[in-house]
Amino acid sequence: MGGDHGPRAILPGLETLLGKRSDLTFLLYGDRETVEGAIADLPRLKAASTIHHTEVAVAMDEKPSQALRSGRYKSSMWQAIESTKTRESDVAVSAGNTGALMAMATFCLRTMANIDRPAIGAIWPTVKGEAIVLDVGATIGADAVQLVDFAILGAAMARALFDKDCPTVGLLNVGTEDIKGQEEVKEAARILRERRMPTLRYRGFVEGTDIGQGVTDVVVSEGFAGNIALKTAEGTAKQLGGYLRDAMQSSLRSRIGYLFARDAFRKLRERMDPARANGGVFLGLNGLVVKSHGGANAEAFAAAVSLAADLAKGDLQHRIRDDLDKFHADRIPAPGSEEDSTQTDGFVRGDSAETGQSGQKT
Amino acid sequence: MGGDHGPRAILPGLETLLGKRSDLTFLLYGDRETVEGAIADLPRLKAASTIHHTEVAVAMDEKPSQALRSGRYKSSMWQAIESTKTRESDVAVSAGNTGALMAMATFCLRTMANIDRPAIGAIWPTVKGEAIVLDVGATIGADAVQLVDFAILGAAMARALFDKDCPTVGLLNVGTEDIKGQEEVKEAARILRERRMPTLRYRGFVEGTDIGQGVTDVVVSEGFAGNIALKTAEGTAKQLGGYLRDAMQSSLRSRIGYLFARDAFRKLRERMDPARANGGVFLGLNGLVVKSHGGANAEAFAAAVSLAADLAKGDLQHRIRDDLDKFHADRIPAPGSEEDSTQTDGFVRGDSAETGQSGQKT
Repeated sequence: MGGDHGPRAILPGLETLLGKRSDLTFLLYGDRETVEGAIADLPRLKAASTIHHTEVAVAMDEKPSQALRSGRYKSSMWQAIESTKTRESDVAVSAGNTGALMAMATFCLRTMANIDRPAIGAIWPTVKGEAIVLDVGATIGADAVQLVDFAILGAAMARALFDKDCPTVGLLNVGTEDIKGQEEVKEAARILRERRMPTLRYRGFVEGTDIGQGVTDVVVSEGFAGNIALKTAEGTAKQLGGYLRDAMQSSLRSRIGYLFARDAFRKLRERMDPARANGGVFLGLNGLVVKSHGGANAEAFAAAVSLAADLAKGDLQHRIRDDLDKFHADRIPAPGSEEDSTQTDGFVRGDSAETGQSGQKT
Repeated sequence: MGGDHGPRAILPGLETLLGKRSDLTFLLYGDRETVEGAIADLPRLKAASTIHHTEVAVAMDEKPSQALRSGRYKSSMWQAIESTKTRESDVAVSAGNTGALMAMATFCLRTMANIDRPAIGAIWPTVKGEAIVLDVGATIGADAVQLVDFAILGAAMARALFDKDCPTVGLLNVGTEDIKGQEEVKEAARILRERRMPTLRYRGFVEGTDIGQGVTDVVVSEGFAGNIALKTAEGTAKQLGGYLRDAMQSSLRSRIGYLFARDAFRKLRERMDPARANGGVFLGLNGLVVKSHGGANAEAFAAAVSLAADLAKGDLQHRIRDDLDKFHADRIPAPGSEEDSTQTDGFVRGDSAETGQSGQKT
């Protein structure tokens, strides 16, 4: 029921996707009459889906707390999320209210053991292919251990999607020298350097310029800076797309040039199309939830669902659970870590590498 | 002496600039022999400049603390900065080591009264013209009052450059709703809303996507997120420029199209050229210092010097001093503000608007 276009974009998107991926089946949560009306002339989808009627739909502008009050248990959003908990579905996808979706997902599914806070992972198109950037806005601020958790979550997502055994990980920072940056980031770097994990390769600090160059497969940041990076990249792409359009329309010669190079421009547009990379993945919860852009059209929504299906097939949730168990089993509680609530002191001070507890799997 | 290309880029840049701006004169700090050699065939610059020999040049990879130890008082960098303090020059420009430049500038010039920390302001090309984004990396983290100070600094810079009496200001955040974001940002918003300053118009939160759309003339952020936004935009522009080149070379037809639209592509390249917006402005110090990109070629360095000259002519330093005095004269010390060191409580709790102390100038 969510998103700017509701079932009118979502359902045709699924119909098209079924043309390419006929193995998918859908549980559709929403107002039965609306859904049945929209699905009538979509034969593939009709055959591949079950409609679950819900009375309540979360509005796009509802505050998360309000959505939880009015929509818990009975809204289409809640029931879709819950279907991943009960294993009726492998993954839930919504184009609805992001804040409400995160609040409901956290409330319904809870964070995994050893995870304090969930993260949102985004696919970032790079000159080499794709990277994963997280957190792009689930929470604001993160301490060193939370950043390390994000590295583990992001690496698991990269392994599920990119077919790489040991993806590279960078920490987003304002410089690549060791001395630069926030204390939390420096401490996370120390932990990642000293704990050699078999499921990721830590490559050091990366800057904003490095993300699109594909310097690492995974880029880790706390949610405020990560969200600003993602939105700034979107804005810059939009701005430059506008410049290009202006330039191509600026003279008769440029318009003729455009006609000649039409195919090239079409391919360029596809490469720059934000719909290609639609889908924010909620990571660290006991259930898989993917958020589509609210403004997504049918094609973009299909991209988010396709991503969701890839993650489910790549067994993301099991990978994450295994990686977290392994990491935290190796973790030696720091003396006094219960009392000490400063950002960096809750974690064992880098002696695990020396005591030979890391890297058993290599 | 600084930058990747040293005097070989810097001096020809000045020569070209003098062709357009014959009113400028230069004090050149560096190794006399090197500078005299490079200036020999630059007649305009030779006539318009005085060479000051210095023995020490700060290396590009020196740590700030090390640069301060070895280069204080006697390096070209220090002496150029000092010339703004002694009023021999109106503004200092360097393509050298950013960290060293900031450390030396802060040490030599000191922050202005009522300013805790300097900021670096950057010019950001937008679809409407240009915006100023600060802080892009002088310091990491900022409390609410520091963010308000940045708003004042940025607005003064916008007035000096853009010929606007009352530039618009936005706070960079992860959403535009009041409830979103870091506590410091929310508190800064409250102060900016309640204190109606005659020198700026506060417009609310802006997101990463809004910067390039020119939603406000000034975008305020703490230095970590601001630096990440700037670098991410640079990286995205580079990435898309690469995509465009690939597309235009992808087929015979696209190459023919490129030939036809050549002029349009030239204009597009100019619009996207980072050299156009070269120059980070150190704000909040008792002297004006502009940092050029280290990798700047002659043209880009000239752009930074041209910006520096515009700021000096726009009387930036006086504007800032006046605005800060006005703002802080209106500021009522909060009860217990000395004892209370939390992020938001050191500032008067928004009663200034009610007591009629703001906006006397309107």
